[in-house]
Amino acid sequence: MIIAKVVGNVWATKKDESLNGLKFFVVQPVKGGARDGFVAVDAAGAGIGDHVLVSQGSSARMVFDREHVPVDAVIVGIIDSVEVDESLLGK
Amino acid sequence: MIIAKVVGNVWATKKDESLNGLKFFVVQPVKGGARDGFVAVDAAGAGIGDHVLVSQGSSARMVFDREHVPVDAVIVGIIDSVEVDESLLGK
Amino acid sequence: MIIAKVVGNVWATKKDESLNGLKFFVVQPVKGGARDGFVAVDAAGAGIGDHVLVSQGSSARMVFDREHVPVDAVIVGIIDSVEVDESLLGK
Amino acid sequence: MIIAKVVGNVWATKKDESLNGLKFFVVQPVKGGARDGFVAVDAAGAGIGDHVLVSQGSSARMVFDREHVPVDAVIVGIIDSVEVDESLLGK
Amino acid sequence: MIIAKVVGNVWATKKDESLNGLKFFVVQPVKGGARDGFVAVDAAGAGIGDHVLVSQGSSARMVFDREHVPVDAVIVGIIDSVEVDESLLGK
Repeated sequence: MIIAKVVGNVWATKKDESLNGLKFFVVQPVKGGARDGFVAVDAAGAGIGDHVLVSQGSSARMVFDREHVPVDAVIVGIIDSVEVDESLLGK
Repeated sequence: MIIAKVVGNVWATKKDESLNGLKFFVVQPVKGGARDGFVAVDAAGAGIGDHVLVSQGSSARMVFDREHVPVDAVIVGIIDSVEVDESLLGK
Repeated sequence: MIIAKVVGNVWATKKDESLNGLKFFVVQPVKGGARDGFVAVDAAGAGIGDHVLVSQGSSARMVFDREHVPVDAVIVGIIDSVEVDESLLGK
Repeated sequence: MIIAKVVGNVWATKKDESLNGLKFFVVQPVKGGARDGFVAVDAAGAGIGDHVLVSQGSSARMVFDREHVPVDAVIVGIIDSVEVDESLLGK
Repeated sequence: MIIAKVVGNVWATKKDESLNGLKFFVVQPVKGGARDGFVAVDAAGAGIGDHVLVSQGSSARMVFDREHVPVDAVIVGIIDSVEVDESLLGK
């Protein structure tokens, strides 16, 4: 999973019907993963400005009860805090 | 998912038969994901110039009713608008 | 999928037995995807010099009738032509 | 799999319920894979400072007894030692 | 698949029990794929110094008879020779 910040919304009226009702956010990776922002579906009640945990690939789909949802990135948690031991980052 | 622009067409007569009838577009990522353009199958009625939402990997295949389609990128929606809070992109 | 050119052959006598009979090509991405060349299994009757459509990941395996083939890249089509509207690539 | 060092903790109270009880670490790749740190779930009893083996994608989920856990990176082992023949790295 | 050279060994005593008995090698990509070395499980009887074919992602798991092995990279073949037509690499 990567840590990202929710920075925007995406609207798409015309889409695969399995995507109806989903909320699409633009997320910007903070640590790890792709450097560019991308689009993730919310499964954690996130909002703009939240730091979130994003799962990608087939694992992302695991949050859905129904099968066959063509979504490859999902916000699976809202981050309370991250604690990194900077002294370990030397190597 | 990534946001991309539909910029071209690809024609391939000789191909795996499960691909017959599919429309292949060249899409150029606008925000997130690979920087280079790549090829995605249309599942949203997209056209040249449209900004679209592209799903990749096994998730892309979820738009097909039949199984075993060797497609790893699908246009799953046509984007109406994207709203990003630029002030959040500082970090 | 990405567009690649078939540029070479790979021979491997000692390999997982599920791979017997497959043809392994070195393919060089032309547009999109990894910049370096990689190895893909042919499922479209491709030859050296052809421009091809390559599917990657679990989607690549969908061309096989049998299950459990440890292949993560397959040539799924031979490209006749690609038409890109250059004016759309500005941004 | 990649070799990474465990450098931090991530706390997320509000998350997909299938994630309850899991331990989330920030891991920093040492050799191979993404350069940036990312978040992995512990399945090997790892601790801060350990060098670990991290599996990603759908393979990561294989450590769970239950299905449908939206996790795309898991610490599958704690590394005792790595021995690389530097003379082979020339090319 | 990518072409890589086997350059080292990895030992991890404490690991997910499904990994017991597997041999972990450090492999260095020669052509294509990630530039950094990473860790792959041997399924072809490879040894240090061999040039090998490495399959990644869910496809890698296909070499195992048992399910649920959290491995995302496997050596599926030992390369005898690679023949690339350099004149095709111009573009």
